[in-house]
Amino acid sequence: MSQIKDYIAQNEDRFMQELFSLIRIPSISAKSEHKGDMVACANRWAEILTSSGLDNAEVMPTDGNPVVYADKIISPDYPTVLVYGHYDVMPEEPVELWKSPAFEPEIRDGHIWARGADDDKGQSMIQVKGFETANKLGLVKCNVKVILEGEEEVGSPSLAPFCEKHKEKLKADVILVSDTGMLAKDIPSITTGLRGLAYWEIEVTGPNRDLHSGHYGGAVANPINELCVLMSKMIDENGRITIPEFYDDVLEISAAEREMIAAAPFNEEEYKKALDVKALKGEAGFHTLERNSCRPSFDICGIWGGYTGEGAKTVLPSKAYAKVSTRLVANQDYRKISQDFVKYIEAIAPEYIKVKVTPLHGGEAYLCPIDMPAYKVAEEAYLATFGKKPLGLRTGGSIPIIATFERILGIKTILMGFGLESDAIHSPNENFPVDLFYKGIETVATFYSKFGR
Amino acid sequence: MSQIKDYIAQNEDRFMQELFSLIRIPSISAKSEHKGDMVACANRWAEILTSSGLDNAEVMPTDGNPVVYADKIISPDYPTVLVYGHYDVMPEEPVELWKSPAFEPEIRDGHIWARGADDDKGQSMIQVKGFETANKLGLVKCNVKVILEGEEEVGSPSLAPFCEKHKEKLKADVILVSDTGMLAKDIPSITTGLRGLAYWEIEVTGPNRDLHSGHYGGAVANPINELCVLMSKMIDENGRITIPEFYDDVLEISAAEREMIAAAPFNEEEYKKALDVKALKGEAGFHTLERNSCRPSFDICGIWGGYTGEGAKTVLPSKAYAKVSTRLVANQDYRKISQDFVKYIEAIAPEYIKVKVTPLHGGEAYLCPIDMPAYKVAEEAYLATFGKKPLGLRTGGSIPIIATFERILGIKTILMGFGLESDAIHSPNENFPVDLFYKGIETVATFYSKFGR
Repeated sequence: MSQIKDYIAQNEDRFMQELFSLIRIPSISAKSEHKGDMVACANRWAEILTSSGLDNAEVMPTDGNPVVYADKIISPDYPTVLVYGHYDVMPEEPVELWKSPAFEPEIRDGHIWARGADDDKGQSMIQVKGFETANKLGLVKCNVKVILEGEEEVGSPSLAPFCEKHKEKLKADVILVSDTGMLAKDIPSITTGLRGLAYWEIEVTGPNRDLHSGHYGGAVANPINELCVLMSKMIDENGRITIPEFYDDVLEISAAEREMIAAAPFNEEEYKKALDVKALKGEAGFHTLERNSCRPSFDICGIWGGYTGEGAKTVLPSKAYAKVSTRLVANQDYRKISQDFVKYIEAIAPEYIKVKVTPLHGGEAYLCPIDMPAYKVAEEAYLATFGKKPLGLRTGGSIPIIATFERILGIKTILMGFGLESDAIHSPNENFPVDLFYKGIETVATFYSKFGR
Repeated sequence: MSQIKDYIAQNEDRFMQELFSLIRIPSISAKSEHKGDMVACANRWAEILTSSGLDNAEVMPTDGNPVVYADKIISPDYPTVLVYGHYDVMPEEPVELWKSPAFEPEIRDGHIWARGADDDKGQSMIQVKGFETANKLGLVKCNVKVILEGEEEVGSPSLAPFCEKHKEKLKADVILVSDTGMLAKDIPSITTGLRGLAYWEIEVTGPNRDLHSGHYGGAVANPINELCVLMSKMIDENGRITIPEFYDDVLEISAAEREMIAAAPFNEEEYKKALDVKALKGEAGFHTLERNSCRPSFDICGIWGGYTGEGAKTVLPSKAYAKVSTRLVANQDYRKISQDFVKYIEAIAPEYIKVKVTPLHGGEAYLCPIDMPAYKVAEEAYLATFGKKPLGLRTGGSIPIIATFERILGIKTILMGFGLESDAIHSPNENFPVDLFYKGIETVATFYSKFGR
């Protein structure tokens, strides 16, 4: 598609300048003193969406920062794409580690250096300029809606209510999001799955006060000892989580997916070396890349109790605590798992302690069917641009908004992320390779040139 | 022995005033601003020891607070008693909870109210005035040496070097200490054993940095999970500690001791109610009062790792820590146990984590043979004063100085303590019953009237 390449080449400076104009607005959602910058950034986006060929640009209020909306409704007969991105960024601290100021973008060594260069101003711009390119060339055969939120870095508190309120307006057939990564510059990949999460705090109470471990030790159950015993029972000798019925709904990995996982570059020795561990540990019968993305996990995220200061103070404490989480996979219901865990702990807790389990948080896993038509089009677009079919790989993390879209809007998302590990998002010296910025635009434009036909 | 009772009755006001004069000096060893008070208190003791009939009173320097020494050498043919006490006290905080000022002793409701009323000015005075009484009545048929240290409440750092340096001067046949308690006012008891201690810090390292639990969870061993598994293996289903060879040297409880333990007042229901636990837990085959004093115990005194703040932060941490202790009993060598534990943990630690075990502290258990002649004399003295033979019971705590005396000086100690649980030592409103103060003096005087004959 040389016309796509040509259009991008002719407009590349403008694309970059428009991105820079967004980056220069320090739209840090975590800091209340940037409230004005949030609105300024939303307004600037509305201008860019309009100049990129979208109609009806609007800065829509929420209980938090506004959502920017625009659309291009070409025909009611066409399928509709909903594009999601976010215009807020992480704080720049620690400021002193930046080689150039976080909000003064500059190009050095073939990279854009700035907060938001990747996450998510750069990647949102890829979506918008990909649409502009295809639209200007008359290649678009679908309707497009764009929403850009301003609270992603603080947990998107207003997004679910926004979706609930504007269900009709946001109706679409598929969602495109560029806010994730790919394996390497020359190994295109699409994130096809995200893990869900259930998270609890456990409080174990032994005696009603801290006791002298000399006067009571050996006669009264110690809540830390007992918490350790309980936690030691959560994973069996095969690395499987012991909560009853836990695996009942787990969707097994398909043969096609296992093939792609096997094709992903992975060197176990290097992986271990990078973590400085002698051996890995996980569920028997699964590859490391399956264990950390397609299979559930159980991690104690925090534990505390008794004396934790310097030296050797003896105590038989009254209480011990842990924060524990499971990462869940497709088809597991976090609400059911959350209750099952509470019941399980209560069932196995011995009578000499009291145990209180408080569910703190949860979210569904997400799985993008790799045989869905829009996904196939995305594959073709990557193949055309990168010369390689992208690997469809799940990631072990969670992006709650993707599950929210599916739950509220009932729409599947394709995570066309162009980020690299080296982009240092959320860190000092965030950056994005210039060539990948344009290649991303080309991929998205190619997607539009093929979708809806 | 009505002459003993008479002498005490004739001198009771003076005894009390002498005690008050000591109490009024705030000899708080934990606070450096009281250095002058430490010396003042030591000097006041030297005066009292002299006026109580002892010779050679001396305030002897150490690297810390001085030790007060005095003796009464009657005949080289007589056996020698060494009396130990301490003149330092705990801080008075929280000051606002005292009903009368901590260092202004007063008698109310039949109790002396003041810091040090029991621990250990009151109880040391019992020893000294018991000796004075017997000595004035010409009943003493042994030599007596007294040492009073000024650092007991801060761990007696100077006492072991002092004993090493003055081994010859401190030569004796038995040590008497009044610094412990008895079961109840009408149930006299002598503490016949103390538990020893071994204490370690454990550091478990998983990956070389904190990891995203989404990206790595399920594939990499979590050090908190693994620490819990290790700790869960320390006690078996019979409540026995699993360290190899751990019980090899444990001295079993004698039939005579078990009989006395069975005679001690103990209501399991009330014990559980006071601690608000539904059930007790301990080594199978032993009574609660045996478990908490005559048998070893294993307690995790502290544990920490990962995220312990508010809310639901996910992390697969790099490290997890625990502070663990075992209470040891007679004949267990804490140095051997200390090494055995390190070896054991290293042996059972799986290859996917690194474990570092650091011994922090240790001390030997102590056991007073209840068939030793001086102990028999003490029993007779209690019987004469209280009308009941005292129960000889071990306590589960540790008093390192007692083991130090045995190790350095090679002398057994009889713990003739007259404290009650209600004396609130180390707490606001420390107190001591007036009648027990005089009964204690009578018991010690009676001991001297019978010892050495």
